[in-house]
Amino acid sequence: MQTLIDKAAVLVEALPYIRRFRDSTFVIKYGGHAMVDDELRAQVAVDLVLLKYIGVRPVVVHGGGPQIGATLERLGKASSYVEGLRVTDDETMEVVEMVLGGKINPDIVQLVNRGGGSGVGLSGRDAGMLRVRRKRVGGQDIGRVGEVVAVDPGPVLAAAAAGYIPIIAPVGVDDDGVSYNVNADEAAGAIAAALGAAKLLMLTDVEGVKDADRKLLRQLSADDARKLIAEGTVSEGMIPKVECCIRAAEAGVERVHIVDGRIRHAILLEIFTDGGVGTLIAR
Amino acid sequence: MQTLIDKAAVLVEALPYIRRFRDSTFVIKYGGHAMVDDELRAQVAVDLVLLKYIGVRPVVVHGGGPQIGATLERLGKASSYVEGLRVTDDETMEVVEMVLGGKINPDIVQLVNRGGGSGVGLSGRDAGMLRVRRKRVGGQDIGRVGEVVAVDPGPVLAAAAAGYIPIIAPVGVDDDGVSYNVNADEAAGAIAAALGAAKLLMLTDVEGVKDADRKLLRQLSADDARKLIAEGTVSEGMIPKVECCIRAAEAGVERVHIVDGRIRHAILLEIFTDGGVGTLIAR
Amino acid sequence: MQTLIDKAAVLVEALPYIRRFRDSTFVIKYGGHAMVDDELRAQVAVDLVLLKYIGVRPVVVHGGGPQIGATLERLGKASSYVEGLRVTDDETMEVVEMVLGGKINPDIVQLVNRGGGSGVGLSGRDAGMLRVRRKRVGGQDIGRVGEVVAVDPGPVLAAAAAGYIPIIAPVGVDDDGVSYNVNADEAAGAIAAALGAAKLLMLTDVEGVKDADRKLLRQLSADDARKLIAEGTVSEGMIPKVECCIRAAEAGVERVHIVDGRIRHAILLEIFTDGGVGTLIAR
Amino acid sequence: MQTLIDKAAVLVEALPYIRRFRDSTFVIKYGGHAMVDDELRAQVAVDLVLLKYIGVRPVVVHGGGPQIGATLERLGKASSYVEGLRVTDDETMEVVEMVLGGKINPDIVQLVNRGGGSGVGLSGRDAGMLRVRRKRVGGQDIGRVGEVVAVDPGPVLAAAAAGYIPIIAPVGVDDDGVSYNVNADEAAGAIAAALGAAKLLMLTDVEGVKDADRKLLRQLSADDARKLIAEGTVSEGMIPKVECCIRAAEAGVERVHIVDGRIRHAILLEIFTDGGVGTLIAR
Amino acid sequence: MQTLIDKAAVLVEALPYIRRFRDSTFVIKYGGHAMVDDELRAQVAVDLVLLKYIGVRPVVVHGGGPQIGATLERLGKASSYVEGLRVTDDETMEVVEMVLGGKINPDIVQLVNRGGGSGVGLSGRDAGMLRVRRKRVGGQDIGRVGEVVAVDPGPVLAAAAAGYIPIIAPVGVDDDGVSYNVNADEAAGAIAAALGAAKLLMLTDVEGVKDADRKLLRQLSADDARKLIAEGTVSEGMIPKVECCIRAAEAGVERVHIVDGRIRHAILLEIFTDGGVGTLIAR
Amino acid sequence: MQTLIDKAAVLVEALPYIRRFRDSTFVIKYGGHAMVDDELRAQVAVDLVLLKYIGVRPVVVHGGGPQIGATLERLGKASSYVEGLRVTDDETMEVVEMVLGGKINPDIVQLVNRGGGSGVGLSGRDAGMLRVRRKRVGGQDIGRVGEVVAVDPGPVLAAAAAGYIPIIAPVGVDDDGVSYNVNADEAAGAIAAALGAAKLLMLTDVEGVKDADRKLLRQLSADDARKLIAEGTVSEGMIPKVECCIRAAEAGVERVHIVDGRIRHAILLEIFTDGGVGTLIAR
Repeated sequence: MQTLIDKAAVLVEALPYIRRFRDSTFVIKYGGHAMVDDELRAQVAVDLVLLKYIGVRPVVVHGGGPQIGATLERLGKASSYVEGLRVTDDETMEVVEMVLGGKINPDIVQLVNRGGGSGVGLSGRDAGMLRVRRKRVGGQDIGRVGEVVAVDPGPVLAAAAAGYIPIIAPVGVDDDGVSYNVNADEAAGAIAAALGAAKLLMLTDVEGVKDADRKLLRQLSADDARKLIAEGTVSEGMIPKVECCIRAAEAGVERVHIVDGRIRHAILLEIFTDGGVGTLIAR
Repeated sequence: MQTLIDKAAVLVEALPYIRRFRDSTFVIKYGGHAMVDDELRAQVAVDLVLLKYIGVRPVVVHGGGPQIGATLERLGKASSYVEGLRVTDDETMEVVEMVLGGKINPDIVQLVNRGGGSGVGLSGRDAGMLRVRRKRVGGQDIGRVGEVVAVDPGPVLAAAAAGYIPIIAPVGVDDDGVSYNVNADEAAGAIAAALGAAKLLMLTDVEGVKDADRKLLRQLSADDARKLIAEGTVSEGMIPKVECCIRAAEAGVERVHIVDGRIRHAILLEIFTDGGVGTLIAR
Repeated sequence: MQTLIDKAAVLVEALPYIRRFRDSTFVIKYGGHAMVDDELRAQVAVDLVLLKYIGVRPVVVHGGGPQIGATLERLGKASSYVEGLRVTDDETMEVVEMVLGGKINPDIVQLVNRGGGSGVGLSGRDAGMLRVRRKRVGGQDIGRVGEVVAVDPGPVLAAAAAGYIPIIAPVGVDDDGVSYNVNADEAAGAIAAALGAAKLLMLTDVEGVKDADRKLLRQLSADDARKLIAEGTVSEGMIPKVECCIRAAEAGVERVHIVDGRIRHAILLEIFTDGGVGTLIAR
Repeated sequence: MQTLIDKAAVLVEALPYIRRFRDSTFVIKYGGHAMVDDELRAQVAVDLVLLKYIGVRPVVVHGGGPQIGATLERLGKASSYVEGLRVTDDETMEVVEMVLGGKINPDIVQLVNRGGGSGVGLSGRDAGMLRVRRKRVGGQDIGRVGEVVAVDPGPVLAAAAAGYIPIIAPVGVDDDGVSYNVNADEAAGAIAAALGAAKLLMLTDVEGVKDADRKLLRQLSADDARKLIAEGTVSEGMIPKVECCIRAAEAGVERVHIVDGRIRHAILLEIFTDGGVGTLIAR
Repeated sequence: MQTLIDKAAVLVEALPYIRRFRDSTFVIKYGGHAMVDDELRAQVAVDLVLLKYIGVRPVVVHGGGPQIGATLERLGKASSYVEGLRVTDDETMEVVEMVLGGKINPDIVQLVNRGGGSGVGLSGRDAGMLRVRRKRVGGQDIGRVGEVVAVDPGPVLAAAAAGYIPIIAPVGVDDDGVSYNVNADEAAGAIAAALGAAKLLMLTDVEGVKDADRKLLRQLSADDARKLIAEGTVSEGMIPKVECCIRAAEAGVERVHIVDGRIRHAILLEIFTDGGVGTLIAR
Repeated sequence: MQTLIDKAAVLVEALPYIRRFRDSTFVIKYGGHAMVDDELRAQVAVDLVLLKYIGVRPVVVHGGGPQIGATLERLGKASSYVEGLRVTDDETMEVVEMVLGGKINPDIVQLVNRGGGSGVGLSGRDAGMLRVRRKRVGGQDIGRVGEVVAVDPGPVLAAAAAGYIPIIAPVGVDDDGVSYNVNADEAAGAIAAALGAAKLLMLTDVEGVKDADRKLLRQLSADDARKLIAEGTVSEGMIPKVECCIRAAEAGVERVHIVDGRIRHAILLEIFTDGGVGTLIAR
């Protein structure tokens, strides 16, 4: 059993953070294990609602990889990839958007509502808020995969100002109104920057960024992170994620965290303890 | 060519309506021909944007019948009906929600954006705003078809107050967070009532309500409308729509219009001319 | 009879102007035929009130030539002119002010009130708002005729902010508090500039400015207008009026219109149609 | 020379009144000697401006008897009276309005401006603010003489709220927009009541109301005043004025003063000394 | 070492309280051991400052028994008591007020300032805020000992609204401006009621209220507390304190706590844990 | 007896000052005869309250020399001085603070309350507002005597904004939270500067500053004052006071007055008469 002294210590540690972050916006990239495991899902919802309680405005950006693949398969549509990105023809894009906007997004909205909050689903197409251009990978056209060129945070601000928790599907739109699939980490980073978020939390299935000795790094600068990538210390799979973090930090997000989404209440612990859980990247 | 005198007359006729409706909310049930024909689609978008110009807050509720059927067919899923309502098992509901929320809704958002406005897509699940219970038809369970029991207009107000045109998919949610298919006319009527809308415009593919001699009725009271139904004067297909109109009028929507969506700029003409186009039902 | 298509076209044409001009101030120089003909008078009142309806703040500056002459004649007082300007001794000035402030001005206030608006009469002496100095014509003193040196728009703003339509008599005041007769076109131009008006509409008894071939010019720049005067293309009588327009345009009034006041609802047509009626002078 | 002790006593006496009346409205009926004598005129202007200094909103209602008569005479127009009221045919009314609105009113505006304030002239016709009906005297029609039936204080409030001193000419208007001559005392009383004025000061050429022994009464109730009239103690000429005061007091004006306008700075002395100058009538 | 799971549990427990109490006022009666022990003193200061961090407005009311006695002794002034209350002659009162207002109060202000807050000292004499009458004990006059009859919380609200932590010395004033010594528990209760405080925390040197078996009662109603006193279960010394708590609860303070001030961070633990420390008395 | 003309003249003289000083802050250094003589004390209270009436915010800073000496004597504590400053050991400082904060300050609060105002006592320790460092006199340490290094006017503003009259005891605090005795003139000057006061009034027991011929100087510049000191014209005892005035004037206090506190209502007379009483020092 936890003693009163311990409890008091946690409170004395946490309360200054509560003051610091009141009226701040936090963007949470939601994906991986924490989006699949039922217990973790419920705890994420609780964390989001508790953030609202203490005056933080959480904004969620979600991914959707596995479910998109499953639906495509069910429709007998083969998937192909270039450098890890799905080649997205028009038919695929139609499925992507239906799954993201018509299945995953409302499910997360529902999760938040059940947790005691009020989620409102948004897509990057709303009011043209996630403006993209067609991405080229090694000079190759891989179809309707977009890279973000601008974000108009208007619809997010409107929902958040009214007390809702915005849940955003990573669909973008080009100047002609054509929709595109966007990497969720990239979308989260760009949205955090546009919102002037105080924090970006990337929920992942790893402990954080590690050094050459596989030791977890608690904090590193954007420059350090870049160096680690150049030195080959960052694992292949983590590189794009870390690059999104670097860009967000450089675009003005004060504190970008890679958080281990497999830990219970990882969001609260990252925010309200001195040590945090995971790696902080800050300019 | 139209003379200056005619132009002046149109303006003198229209301007008082502009004053009257400034800062009012209009709910437009969007469906039928006007949602399919490309030219009419573009004119609807123009009308919505012009309404915004003069200080009216338009709110769109859309249906989606044909596209849902097409997708179900493509997935090899047979459709069955009871009293004109689709029997909706869980698999069907998943498709319904994906098509409404992930296809039709973002397409209308895009249409409005192209017309110069800023559409924001919403679903009745957002913040649990369209609360329903399972509908029973002749004592029979037809699956996840909901009837509206309450509307929380919060998310619509938040989007409209921020200058956006809310585009709402008719998906409802019960007390346990389960989603349901909702008839779009019914959703539009309930939302209009909850918003205290000054007008509800039902875009349809008929001229309006007609009397026993097939003569178009320009205006009738809710009681008259009920009488026409009782007398068998209203065609079978129109009865549910007229009943939604009656309920909306009785729930406080000042003016409910059944508008012929096949006429170009039908929305503007209904609003800004003394005669209007179609039938007005008012308590 | 006018068709629905035509009506819709007028509305589609007019509504963007309504948005553009909302919360703008328009100064209308009211004079000539439109001030004498009873039907035109009533239509001017309707136009002013409709402008209020849609959020424009109309401000009226009126002249008074014929009535002043009539009253002077009745008092057995001869009139004499230098370069078209009335020689104004003290006794004449007393009559001028009584007719402008005690007869014409309240009559226009009444006209506006009858049309459904709320007119409030003002004189350039109120709060010393129309500051003038004694005008010299060809080195000659012609008595109490003033040229405007400064405008304090305070009383006009106060009345307009409270929802009234200010009706202003063109009487000025010098630094010693002595009152002067001021040309109404000049007063209207100076007041429009001081108010930062979006439009100045000069109601006259001509179609507009014409080129050397007597063809109506729909639009010309201040420089063009000056050139036309220099070339002798502008008729003698129109020169002072066009010069007032040029000065107003150069002092920041975005759009200055010479409008044919003999056309019914000339004000509405000028504002809400693409073609307008008359000549637009803009910097 | 006045000693410091005396000065301090005046201040200690005056300052509480300054607090009490801050943000109050005072209506001053301006007429008689104080409107003719140049020194008194200048002191009235100073008093009005000093009231503004300390946060009181003065509103002036003026009469105009002698000047109207003079102008009519000059025009060869005979005057006739019924029970002291001028029989006012249409031609006479035209002259009345020109003199009040085009001569006396702007002269007082000028007086106030010279004294350091900012006067704005208003007429009871502005926005139809002084609504009257035709007065009948002993069953006899005496032409365009009106009795007040309603006051809309809007234009006065607009001018006062913007920091101006409203100067009001006692012209009224009936439901058909026809203008009428109104007794200035009556107009002042009705305007004071409509404004919820804290004080109405009637500047006159007498010391105040006196008792049967010709002793000045410093204060009396509305009922007392009525009794004095019934007993014949009030002089013929004062009766209508005292009746206006009674009506104003009963309509909610807290303190109505009959002030001797022949005393220098009578307005200040009435307001800021315990004794006042003249007679106070209060409900 | 405390695990992450424990930390998360404390946060999940505490955050809802933080939301609930944001913008509430808490009155802390500060006395006993916690006012003497240096470590406890520092922790009280930290607790007060942390409350400020999360939007609670703490208000401190302090006692001063021992220091007053010490000073009186030093001045060679004997102390006598009636029913536990100090007999307070004028000379004694002068000393009381000097010690409370000139020594203890500024020392607590300093303590709070050192802890990172901004304390502002107040006395019940400020703006006459603690209005008392002379207390009679068993029909006996014991001098300048007051019982509270009214509280004007104005000065406390002004300081708190400006972000300061008000520190109040329990000196009262009667209608003639004479100052009185007031029991600090009584003052704290009356001030909490007047402020509409959400909580009153009485820091004492006991665990709380106990039942007949000497078992700590975590929560009891005002009626229960009264019964305990009547039954003789409450110790003599605690009775006046419990009575102050009852009165405060009945006067509208939602939650009154008797808190063991000897526990470290007792204030935080009482507020942010489900169990609390001590006894809650609530109507 | 004073005539009406005299009264009017006083008002015409005073009212412009009332406008000028509305919403200004005046700091009054209160000491000397005016703090001892009962009649003068009552008049000072009246003056402060009247200032509040007309929208001035008075702030009082008081001294306390004689009473501190008396109490020290009573405690058998000898006083010693270096260059006119009391050598202040810790025990002395404890007494100083008790007398200033626990006796003189609440007495003035009470005086103001009795006069109809609402005084709130403050000490320079509140929120650390009067920051000082240890003063050295001729290289000698004289104990806890502080010289002001910074003022945070927060607590004064909070009290004044809420309508209270702040009464400040001249106790300062150093960076370590140790309290110091501060010269009241110096404290008043520094506080006036920090508040951006429009006036600082130093109530003293002299007529003002005099020239070499012992003639009272009504007004002098800071430079002139410095010159007078250099020339030896200012008496020894007045030098520190005049230096405080010079510093306040140079720190931005528009008008610094040395006022003869022995004159009745000296504060009012200084402010609201053209001549004033005493000497004005202005940059």
